[in-house]
Amino acid sequence: MAAISVPEFSTDVSTSTPIPVPPGSVGLVSPQFITFNEPLRLTSGQVLPSYELAVETYGVLNAQRNNAVLICHALNASHHVAGISASDPKDIGWWDNMVGPGKAVDTDRFFVIGVNNIGSCFGSTGPASINPETGLPWGAAFPMLTVEDWVQAQARLADHFGISKLAAVMGGSLGGMQALSWAITCPDRIGHCIVIASTPRLSAQNIGFNEVARRSIISDPDFHGGNYYAQGCVPKHGLSVARMVGHITYLSDDDMAEKFGRTQRAPADNGEFHYGYDVEFEVESYLRYQGEKFSTYFDANTYLLITRALDYFDPSRNHGGDLARAMESAKADFLLVSFSTDWRFPPARSREIVRSLLKNKRAVTYAEIDAPHGHDAFLLDDARYHAVVQGYYDRIAAKLGLPERTQTKGVLA
Amino acid sequence: MAAISVPEFSTDVSTSTPIPVPPGSVGLVSPQFITFNEPLRLTSGQVLPSYELAVETYGVLNAQRNNAVLICHALNASHHVAGISASDPKDIGWWDNMVGPGKAVDTDRFFVIGVNNIGSCFGSTGPASINPETGLPWGAAFPMLTVEDWVQAQARLADHFGISKLAAVMGGSLGGMQALSWAITCPDRIGHCIVIASTPRLSAQNIGFNEVARRSIISDPDFHGGNYYAQGCVPKHGLSVARMVGHITYLSDDDMAEKFGRTQRAPADNGEFHYGYDVEFEVESYLRYQGEKFSTYFDANTYLLITRALDYFDPSRNHGGDLARAMESAKADFLLVSFSTDWRFPPARSREIVRSLLKNKRAVTYAEIDAPHGHDAFLLDDARYHAVVQGYYDRIAAKLGLPERTQTKGVLA
Repeated sequence: MAAISVPEFSTDVSTSTPIPVPPGSVGLVSPQFITFNEPLRLTSGQVLPSYELAVETYGVLNAQRNNAVLICHALNASHHVAGISASDPKDIGWWDNMVGPGKAVDTDRFFVIGVNNIGSCFGSTGPASINPETGLPWGAAFPMLTVEDWVQAQARLADHFGISKLAAVMGGSLGGMQALSWAITCPDRIGHCIVIASTPRLSAQNIGFNEVARRSIISDPDFHGGNYYAQGCVPKHGLSVARMVGHITYLSDDDMAEKFGRTQRAPADNGEFHYGYDVEFEVESYLRYQGEKFSTYFDANTYLLITRALDYFDPSRNHGGDLARAMESAKADFLLVSFSTDWRFPPARSREIVRSLLKNKRAVTYAEIDAPHGHDAFLLDDARYHAVVQGYYDRIAAKLGLPERTQTKGVLA
Repeated sequence: MAAISVPEFSTDVSTSTPIPVPPGSVGLVSPQFITFNEPLRLTSGQVLPSYELAVETYGVLNAQRNNAVLICHALNASHHVAGISASDPKDIGWWDNMVGPGKAVDTDRFFVIGVNNIGSCFGSTGPASINPETGLPWGAAFPMLTVEDWVQAQARLADHFGISKLAAVMGGSLGGMQALSWAITCPDRIGHCIVIASTPRLSAQNIGFNEVARRSIISDPDFHGGNYYAQGCVPKHGLSVARMVGHITYLSDDDMAEKFGRTQRAPADNGEFHYGYDVEFEVESYLRYQGEKFSTYFDANTYLLITRALDYFDPSRNHGGDLARAMESAKADFLLVSFSTDWRFPPARSREIVRSLLKNKRAVTYAEIDAPHGHDAFLLDDARYHAVVQGYYDRIAAKLGLPERTQTKGVLA
């Protein structure tokens, strides 16, 4: 297979309007859709006969094919990791601050792959796709997936690109679980494992919040047992509440205090409350807006499926709960990053992974970033955090003999 | 008015079966219902023309009428503070471990009043009561209430008993807010203010969780805009989800890990998961059960109303956000207690109250209990916590010249 290059559009094809590409951006990007016809045997015992993956790539795969980085997404993200969507110039990749020419994950040197996981709702085969056996949307019949199933599908994607060993697999939150699972299940195919704001397993509290979200969706009469596509409706109220509760867990208490505090939204003329259940506080307005927006574009079955995959993930489970034993197979070097105010997956969970790796004498870099933004911090632009990741990638590049960094976010080095 | 004595039934009147009364219990108790025909002008500007309060009392009001203690309840509680309900021997008061002969709040010496607040659903006038103007349940037309409104109604209840000054007002969580409000708004009528696991105001995160609960209820089609009584249904799914999310916030992460961890509930024969959305983990089973049980007895309009009263409470609001200025009117002595793992109303919130009182040179006792049980700790039997409260009540008794303690939980001193 020939080297694959980054698309270099600079024109919105729908309107022929030139799109300004900011320095450090990979520019306009479009997904590719790759069909896999070999059946995928899943953890649950079910078999997915065939599937399609939506993928974006940035940078150039070198001749040795040793500069590939796979980016794994969390609940509400996709293959669109970086750059400007050619079909919607307002749609910037979810980790655009991390991935691009001269950025921490430098696309001048690395070939970066973004993939939408099976079961998601952004282009890859999922519950809203047509089940070839029935000609109808899968709906409730779509098989349950696990982190290990996603990794298996991602490994086939690496095969597709002719990549036998990835320079790195990287992800935040649920994406970090996929990176961890790569290190355990495909130890010879991953050089570096980068796990950010993640956990080796959900706590009872984490599962509890997921279950609240699922009950909210499943008990919405518009859910129709998961087969709402045929009914021409979506369980938007349930999905909206699910998103609201999720959103609270992504932010820190301090961050919410800073952003919203007790600020009133449109108080009465005398500054008083309205004494009712319409919005009184900014935080209500924000959460309602986030919930309602989410319910217009995210698939409810996907929400159920991904939260369940989160619940199930626990590589220590088949090793008597001993994470160090689960990590015995790993051969990669590791970077772990956690954030001080992340109460969803707090630093202690990352430290547990670090300890399990040190017991196995793995090379581990660990950074605990003192940041106020809770779990969401892994998506935000924080100079210290990005410096840690950039330094780590510079070491990967040096070890692999990749070219020197030539620019920093669009500025020549 | 004559001294009021504790009921001393020891027989279940419905079956004539003797009920064993454990040592330290106030025994079998029945509520009294007291009607107030003087209209209550509310913070919202609305007027409640008349109302009834459900009340229980324990112990004897002395001749000086200076030994009365008012106990204020939180979201999901009532006037049934202590003892065994005469109508249901399984129904033990919600703070029975705290209140009784020889207990921390010693009913041998104090006359204890438990009152169900207006708007609640356990016997006092609330949204499910009949609106005298229409002859139909109030439903959505029931006026919004605030902590200050409840205190006003409680002050009239003290008048009813001929009590000009309460020895103490005490409450946990929302109950603590009522105690605090008593100290501010009725400074001459309260000797001691006991505020446990509370806060001077909700944070944005607290309001966010309340809003999730309200959205869940209001978007349930069985809510019918609050007028579900006439439809013969209740928004049980919405109320159940609301309770689930509330419940998670009452427990600590560690406590949930200890109680449930990742323990599977009824795994498949091979120990595996079922790979579906039925219960897989104990924590799911527990939360679903709690949610469903709650939805069978709690009124959805009451849930909305009480969470909104929580949101509104902020005595500093009319003082430019300065809590110390809000506390200037207070004359009581104070006991504050917080719990280390309470992430709903963490110790920092209690410390904020303590600081505001010290600025006003009030006498303050503050205990921060290192307990693993999160916000719920205020309801649990913890020897250190109860010793603090008991010691404080012994000092109140000594100051008032009340008789010496004669027993400790049913054992003669």
